[in-house]
Amino acid sequence: MLIVMAADASREDVAQVTERIVALGLTAHPIPGAQRVAIGITGNQGAVDPALFENLPGVLEVIPVSHPYKLVSREAKPEASVVHVSGVPVGGGNFAVIAGPCAVETYEQTRTIAGHARQCGAQILRGGAFKPRTSPYAFQGLGKNGLEILRDVGREVGMPVVSEALDERSLELVVEYCDMIQIGARNMQNYALLRLCGQARKPVLLKRGMAATVDELLMAAEYVLAGGNYDVVLCERGIRTFADHTRNTLDLAAVVAVQRLSHLPILVDPSHGTGKRHKVVPLARAAAAVGADGVMVEVHSDPARALSDGAQAILPEELSQLLQQVAALLPLTGRHLAPQVRAKG
Amino acid sequence: MLIVMAADASREDVAQVTERIVALGLTAHPIPGAQRVAIGITGNQGAVDPALFENLPGVLEVIPVSHPYKLVSREAKPEASVVHVSGVPVGGGNFAVIAGPCAVETYEQTRTIAGHARQCGAQILRGGAFKPRTSPYAFQGLGKNGLEILRDVGREVGMPVVSEALDERSLELVVEYCDMIQIGARNMQNYALLRLCGQARKPVLLKRGMAATVDELLMAAEYVLAGGNYDVVLCERGIRTFADHTRNTLDLAAVVAVQRLSHLPILVDPSHGTGKRHKVVPLARAAAAVGADGVMVEVHSDPARALSDGAQAILPEELSQLLQQVAALLPLTGRHLAPQVRAKG
Amino acid sequence: MLIVMAADASREDVAQVTERIVALGLTAHPIPGAQRVAIGITGNQGAVDPALFENLPGVLEVIPVSHPYKLVSREAKPEASVVHVSGVPVGGGNFAVIAGPCAVETYEQTRTIAGHARQCGAQILRGGAFKPRTSPYAFQGLGKNGLEILRDVGREVGMPVVSEALDERSLELVVEYCDMIQIGARNMQNYALLRLCGQARKPVLLKRGMAATVDELLMAAEYVLAGGNYDVVLCERGIRTFADHTRNTLDLAAVVAVQRLSHLPILVDPSHGTGKRHKVVPLARAAAAVGADGVMVEVHSDPARALSDGAQAILPEELSQLLQQVAALLPLTGRHLAPQVRAKG
Amino acid sequence: MLIVMAADASREDVAQVTERIVALGLTAHPIPGAQRVAIGITGNQGAVDPALFENLPGVLEVIPVSHPYKLVSREAKPEASVVHVSGVPVGGGNFAVIAGPCAVETYEQTRTIAGHARQCGAQILRGGAFKPRTSPYAFQGLGKNGLEILRDVGREVGMPVVSEALDERSLELVVEYCDMIQIGARNMQNYALLRLCGQARKPVLLKRGMAATVDELLMAAEYVLAGGNYDVVLCERGIRTFADHTRNTLDLAAVVAVQRLSHLPILVDPSHGTGKRHKVVPLARAAAAVGADGVMVEVHSDPARALSDGAQAILPEELSQLLQQVAALLPLTGRHLAPQVRAKG
Repeated sequence: MLIVMAADASREDVAQVTERIVALGLTAHPIPGAQRVAIGITGNQGAVDPALFENLPGVLEVIPVSHPYKLVSREAKPEASVVHVSGVPVGGGNFAVIAGPCAVETYEQTRTIAGHARQCGAQILRGGAFKPRTSPYAFQGLGKNGLEILRDVGREVGMPVVSEALDERSLELVVEYCDMIQIGARNMQNYALLRLCGQARKPVLLKRGMAATVDELLMAAEYVLAGGNYDVVLCERGIRTFADHTRNTLDLAAVVAVQRLSHLPILVDPSHGTGKRHKVVPLARAAAAVGADGVMVEVHSDPARALSDGAQAILPEELSQLLQQVAALLPLTGRHLAPQVRAKG
Repeated sequence: MLIVMAADASREDVAQVTERIVALGLTAHPIPGAQRVAIGITGNQGAVDPALFENLPGVLEVIPVSHPYKLVSREAKPEASVVHVSGVPVGGGNFAVIAGPCAVETYEQTRTIAGHARQCGAQILRGGAFKPRTSPYAFQGLGKNGLEILRDVGREVGMPVVSEALDERSLELVVEYCDMIQIGARNMQNYALLRLCGQARKPVLLKRGMAATVDELLMAAEYVLAGGNYDVVLCERGIRTFADHTRNTLDLAAVVAVQRLSHLPILVDPSHGTGKRHKVVPLARAAAAVGADGVMVEVHSDPARALSDGAQAILPEELSQLLQQVAALLPLTGRHLAPQVRAKG
Repeated sequence: MLIVMAADASREDVAQVTERIVALGLTAHPIPGAQRVAIGITGNQGAVDPALFENLPGVLEVIPVSHPYKLVSREAKPEASVVHVSGVPVGGGNFAVIAGPCAVETYEQTRTIAGHARQCGAQILRGGAFKPRTSPYAFQGLGKNGLEILRDVGREVGMPVVSEALDERSLELVVEYCDMIQIGARNMQNYALLRLCGQARKPVLLKRGMAATVDELLMAAEYVLAGGNYDVVLCERGIRTFADHTRNTLDLAAVVAVQRLSHLPILVDPSHGTGKRHKVVPLARAAAAVGADGVMVEVHSDPARALSDGAQAILPEELSQLLQQVAALLPLTGRHLAPQVRAKG
Repeated sequence: MLIVMAADASREDVAQVTERIVALGLTAHPIPGAQRVAIGITGNQGAVDPALFENLPGVLEVIPVSHPYKLVSREAKPEASVVHVSGVPVGGGNFAVIAGPCAVETYEQTRTIAGHARQCGAQILRGGAFKPRTSPYAFQGLGKNGLEILRDVGREVGMPVVSEALDERSLELVVEYCDMIQIGARNMQNYALLRLCGQARKPVLLKRGMAATVDELLMAAEYVLAGGNYDVVLCERGIRTFADHTRNTLDLAAVVAVQRLSHLPILVDPSHGTGKRHKVVPLARAAAAVGADGVMVEVHSDPARALSDGAQAILPEELSQLLQQVAALLPLTGRHLAPQVRAKG
């Protein structure tokens, strides 16, 4: 933390700031400049609240210096983490493709898409059973029934499954039926849910909130790790901006930023990140090229009839193309497609 | 819904779109233009999913026309709603001032601030017992203990109380101890929580999410009304933008937009909306001038020592000034300070 | 400037940074912390380029401390500046209302609107003769002819006039015919034009760019002052965000921020700031309440037939209402309507 | 254009809207719905101003349907344009790498960087002679002298050169000395400058403004084409958002959007798009993978001593890596590195 004093701050102002620092058990380092004095603070564990100084007389600005996360940081653990999702490694060179329908609708629909996805090379099956919908009147998902379908199909084709949890009840079910828990963008700062994920014994796929900075994404992950669950995979899925040609603006530089700051794997979701089918494959290529640890995409065999978000689902043949193109460029960043698991039965 | 066909769309493309519209039980209205054809759709209840048409051959663009909310809309209920918070009317000309500490820390702290707020003219007492904190290592609130303090102080000074609920457990406690449930910006799209609010028998203060449009705020409120709880007060608290001189950018035009589209009252929170103490009173004046139905502000008698968010809390003397200035300009918009209630005991 | 070293930076890394600081003729102030070292820099005139240090080995972050503007800052000149526009004082308690058509269309149109604006209490007449239009096929303004009309009408009714300059040629004409030069949001960082304004002998109305921070607005003003022209009035006119209920998001907290950092007056433009007629008067009230030094509004006697931007122009009767309401609340911030000047002839 | 009437609009309101449409010489297509009437408009050349209808009684919303650009659109010219820069083709499968120093500083510096860039495979040399700097006190470029160095070096090594023009004077010099005119992000809506570019006989590199939508970028290009200059190359260089881990947020989906809407080539600038050296190569790969027609990067042999923007310049060895990696993935999108030209003399 650095405290910058105003040019006209008095000697007493500086003394008062210094006293408060000392009173907090910290050390003050005054730096006299030509125009003003700045005061560095050391000795703190974690972040100091800027509010403790911001309104003292003579204080111009309070500048935080340390980042507030610990367990997720590369300083804490320099090597990249590999998260194992029931046999599929994610991160550390393993590029994961999570594919499946936006929402589980029927066994047949899910089985058809999953069969194709497995054949193309995708390793993990996604499918929503609890859908966070903007409108209370929209289709909300099949619930437990949907999770059963997803689990059964995953076993049949040989894909661990991931589905979104919205609250305590759905989390319990997702933990029971799935191999990985998805926390959606709207819940990235639902701290009650994050704490529950910290106690869960399943890996967590944590999506970046639409208005979240990279630091806030890492802090949200810190909640899960602080609860004792170290198996977290992050996911960039677009942020909200003024740009109107896509539903969100996919921020691929965030992948590079996260990989510098944290050891956790990070995926990219070009389906929600663009909201337009024709942009999904190009942006998936870009995600692989930038060095992401995987992608998550929505697939539908008949997107025009999908019950939710059909406009962003790609067709099965587009998924094949995606896998081929992505596989071709992974060696550039020292990555390879993660291995698939076998069907059970 | 309007479907715009590409300039080079074939007659078959147009026919296919028309057929799908008819197959959905709706009516198609082709509008032949010089360069292209557009097709209007009528007969729908609620919104039609653009995805059903967006990827059909020859379709250039799908433009939604109707707004998807119903119960919250002014078309459904033209006159402004008045929400009663244990005797304090909010909306319909009644300007409410909700004031109190960011977090309940001790009985003495809460009692001191509440006594002053009541004396200045504030009608409702706020105080956080469950705090959504970015860091898992930060002070998280006193929980049930804090709610007890808040309730007791509210009764003593004569102010209904409002506190934030984060999940099912905290919601049950807030409903038990408080007169109004606050749903914070981070939970605006926590639909599980909104549904529970729909079943609660207490008014709800719903804050706009940092990345939420006005339509999404209204849809979130629709969840609560659709659940049977019509007592919802909205709150503009700033959106996330590139501007770095405030923590968020307070969007006062949203007040006017909401009042045109909906009958629900809307408050403004200049504390979170700016994040800077010296900006709170000026923006509270602006909120009153633009026609808001109230403001919510954080107050602390010793902000530099507050356990959370002290930098944005105003001092007691600033609250007095705020009330005086706001009261002076309310007549301009046909409003007046809402009446206070009596102390119990 | 503060340089934060990585936790694992070596003694040599720190030494290299220190050497570079010394080589630049500056002073290094190492601050040893428990986890890392930070190094303060003093002795610099103006900002030091972070790039000089950002990529040195062991450097984690470079944090600028001083603001880069000088002449516009309150530290340089503590008292508020009053800018005189041919007899109308702006700032220092004088609240200016600049009103008029978006574009000068005919003498009659301009005369009608100006006559009404003068009668309501507006002091300065605006009217575009050179219009920056998104489309090359849209009406571009009457040019010199429009400026002649504007000047003549201004003299007749007793209002100094302001019009936008887009380039060197139009600037010469605006300087010749008008009392104040307007630089639009799209040209806020057109440094060639700002330099020319620095040499002009007329006051400048500088609008904030749609993506400009407050610091960048002040730096743009610094260009004009550095050129020798100290008569600059700033104008907040909305920034670009995801919010879609207005054309731009009016950032009223920027008024407070500017007034703390700079001595220059700052106006608010609720016409461009909202883009919707029904929001102009409420936001003008809010601007006055927040403490702005004036407002600039577009007025049209028949907005539905206006050649440009008619949707945001208010009607003459709305201007009367605006002036009355604003005048009523100015005393709250120690302001009053600026005096008008007399008609010439 | 579609006009949506309010649910309670009267028959007279509808009639008045229809009359105005007819009075403008256009055709009205009323679409009666269950809840409301909508009215389609056809017969217009180019866009109709929404303002003509927005404030009529009973009008709820006015929705523009056609895009306002013509010459730049794919509807006007379905095949991709190839822009020839003194022998280097850009677009239509030709991937161009524009590389060079942020600012031309000395002959030696420019020659060293250019020699290396040519050897790596870059085809076009960039270098600023007129720099748009946020601060009036920062290094502003060598001007004409810099252009001479750039031209000479370009001839020696065999690279056409591009440099930024800021105003009429610098544009004349850039046209004289360079093979391509760069218009920077801050000037994307400097329509006076765009018009001059329309008359210039050199290709134009037009960068997207920090707050510009894709439509506005295309409209800015339309200014140049409408002036008679069809040789325009667009450039995505990041937009302004709340995200703080990069200087701007690179919007790679805009590449796909532009390529669908327009026939013009589009490049990506990962140097300005991220502002961080370590993110340039990953984002350049992503740009190639998404299907861009080239990249523009800043290179410096000693970035820590660069006079401007050194933090985002890559080292010569990083440029080699960039070219190799990009070349390896171009076949995925049916592209290849554009051919180089020969040194003259």
